Amino acid sequence: MGIVVQKYGGSSLGDAGRIKEVARRIVESKKAGYDVVVAVSAMGDTTDDLLDLAKGVSPLPPAREMDMLLTAGERISMALVAMAISDLGFTARSFTGSQAGVITDSAHGRAKIIDVTPGRISAAIADGHIVIVAGFQGVSQDTKEITTLGRGGTDTTAVALAAALGADYCEIFTDVDGVFTADPRIVPTARRLERVSYEEMLEMAASGAKILHLRCVEYARRYDMPVHVRSSFSHKEGTWITPEQPGEEAMEQAIIAGVAHDRSEAKITVVGVPDKVGEAARIFEALAATEVNIDMVVQNVSAAATGLTDISFTLPRADGQTAMSALARIQDEVGYDKLLYDDRIGKVSLIGAGMRSHPGITAKFFAALASAGVNIEMISTSEIRISVIVNEVQVDEAVRATHTAFELDAAEVEAVVYGGTGR
Amino acid sequence: MGIVVQKYGGSSLGDAGRIKEVARRIVESKKAGYDVVVAVSAMGDTTDDLLDLAKGVSPLPPAREMDMLLTAGERISMALVAMAISDLGFTARSFTGSQAGVITDSAHGRAKIIDVTPGRISAAIADGHIVIVAGFQGVSQDTKEITTLGRGGTDTTAVALAAALGADYCEIFTDVDGVFTADPRIVPTARRLERVSYEEMLEMAASGAKILHLRCVEYARRYDMPVHVRSSFSHKEGTWITPEQPGEEAMEQAIIAGVAHDRSEAKITVVGVPDKVGEAARIFEALAATEVNIDMVVQNVSAAATGLTDISFTLPRADGQTAMSALARIQDEVGYDKLLYDDRIGKVSLIGAGMRSHPGITAKFFAALASAGVNIEMISTSEIRISVIVNEVQVDEAVRATHTAFELDAAEVEAVVYGGTGR
Repeated sequence: MGIVVQKYGGSSLGDAGRIKEVARRIVESKKAGYDVVVAVSAMGDTTDDLLDLAKGVSPLPPAREMDMLLTAGERISMALVAMAISDLGFTARSFTGSQAGVITDSAHGRAKIIDVTPGRISAAIADGHIVIVAGFQGVSQDTKEITTLGRGGTDTTAVALAAALGADYCEIFTDVDGVFTADPRIVPTARRLERVSYEEMLEMAASGAKILHLRCVEYARRYDMPVHVRSSFSHKEGTWITPEQPGEEAMEQAIIAGVAHDRSEAKITVVGVPDKVGEAARIFEALAATEVNIDMVVQNVSAAATGLTDISFTLPRADGQTAMSALARIQDEVGYDKLLYDDRIGKVSLIGAGMRSHPGITAKFFAALASAGVNIEMISTSEIRISVIVNEVQVDEAVRATHTAFELDAAEVEAVVYGGTGR
Repeated sequence: MGIVVQKYGGSSLGDAGRIKEVARRIVESKKAGYDVVVAVSAMGDTTDDLLDLAKGVSPLPPAREMDMLLTAGERISMALVAMAISDLGFTARSFTGSQAGVITDSAHGRAKIIDVTPGRISAAIADGHIVIVAGFQGVSQDTKEITTLGRGGTDTTAVALAAALGADYCEIFTDVDGVFTADPRIVPTARRLERVSYEEMLEMAASGAKILHLRCVEYARRYDMPVHVRSSFSHKEGTWITPEQPGEEAMEQAIIAGVAHDRSEAKITVVGVPDKVGEAARIFEALAATEVNIDMVVQNVSAAATGLTDISFTLPRADGQTAMSALARIQDEVGYDKLLYDDRIGKVSLIGAGMRSHPGITAKFFAALASAGVNIEMISTSEIRISVIVNEVQVDEAVRATHTAFELDAAEVEAVVYGGTGR
């Protein structure tokens, strides 16, 4: 039999009891005949505790030392999981990201994996061991410094290991039952998806669904690695994320995969921009220099009488102040009138690979929003997604109305959410 | 100017406030013109907390994973110290034992340093950084596994780094003011020693003085590295541990360095051993096979009538059960009568390089014990030490009487003890 890679997040490793439960589940897969490699996050609140310690000694700690500090969290959890497995009569070997051959670039706090050289893992597997790897961390190629991968890092570690080891599949154990047609906290009748394509999952992640991080799904798609998202608190089947298979019936039937929402963005409007070649470029160059990620952009048709236009865009709320300052500095140069800042907005997105071949989806979406009395402020689309910006207080209503209009509601409530952020 | 290596223990790094205080002290040395390399232990109770976590998942965790777990403690403290230094406007780089080139054998939990290859440390020094190294840990030469050095490990790390870097000296910061002529908790008039030789410090460490671990002093002696033991809670001068210099007046004057005591041993007596060649060897071979460390050994003159003798020896109380079991297994083979076990004993030792050339020390020591009404159960001596085993309840009285008899008492109390074990 082949190799399976599993990932367990912080809420699945909350205390000694949970760690022993996770060990039993790992051993089940080993007994089933698989070679098992496991990526773990730090236990429960460990990362927050370490961040508090850092805050106690320095308001602005160096990123290199921050990575050194935070990587202690996975070191603790991986050793404990290995001990718990050994207590069940199986042998386990834990490895740091560096030992496991997770090679990254040098960007502390948000490093990207550039290679995985799993020689020690393969040797440990050959010796019959279960392998536990510290998620979220690696070692930089040039400087041999310890790095961390940023949010969702352990998911990415798991999929990268699965790809490098040629695993049969990668299981992401989390605190929810899988990927749902909408957030079950907003739509209690949301249905668990049995399957979803990489492309759909990417659009959902980018649209605010927090179940998997964007980079993890990108990695899975690049290496065609099947990912099974499921709960560590039950033995229920979760959601499989797999390549899109055009001929397959299940995929064909599902025109819409789900409705995602995101309350983390803000909107900035640059009012009264002279409608000349190069003005928009100057604005977005100034923003790019601050490394702020811009999401949606809308430019009004200019009023012929004034020769002025307005440019609106959305961005993470956390970057709002940075972007406003950068724009203020170029006001004289660009000659715009004023800036408007609005963080009382939300984004609602409809995602489905089927919308490519089914016209009328947009009309149906907008009609559903209109009947719910929801006003649309901005619109953006991709081949398999339609997103709208609405007033923040109308996000829940917009999600529910859309979910119902596309007949996604389940006959009965099956969603079980165990709290936590599913990081 | 040269390099100075400093060591800070867990009690010196108890919380954020202490860490900032330690950072200020490190920066003082840097400002004084030294290149500074620092070895740190885990913060306060971190190691105990990690041990509790391990106990929670497995009653008998594998040693390899235990080392992986415990080394997270120094990783946390070294990153925090580096951050606190950076907050003072200086740059620091923290390194794990492995990164610092601390190469050990493969004995998890009690590894010995076999080499130090401090290439990354030297490079960081050359770049102007203060270097923080995780104490107590290394990487095994053959298997590249993470190891720990056992009790007092960080002291040994500090001295080993000092030797490898050719440092001017090594400062061991702890929670007491230095090495005293006796434990100030028992003898309030004990005096701080300004200087003590490696040989005396070795005997004191072996005799129960907990201020420095044996292996650290051995390392310092082998490389002739001056060690300054001092308090991290004050700026007072501490005790210098240096080579014995025969011509030097201060050394000549101090006949006796101090009185040490040890309550961690037990005594086993093998009663009625046939007085034949090879019987004693068989007994101690059986003990050696269990890796129990034997300290003092006494064999009675055999009674001519019976041809039987008694053999008594002392050993760490923690190993008592192991030794008793090993001896019970060879009773038929050796043909001894019975075993007696006594853990109500204590060891009192008088240490001083001067006793080589001053006869009568033993007589004076025994007379002091006799006038205090202390019965001597066993005696052992080295060139610069006399140790006796007494009843545990008489240890304090024996230490005080000896301290006074050799005129070690200070005119006034100067000892300041800040609690903790000074590990």
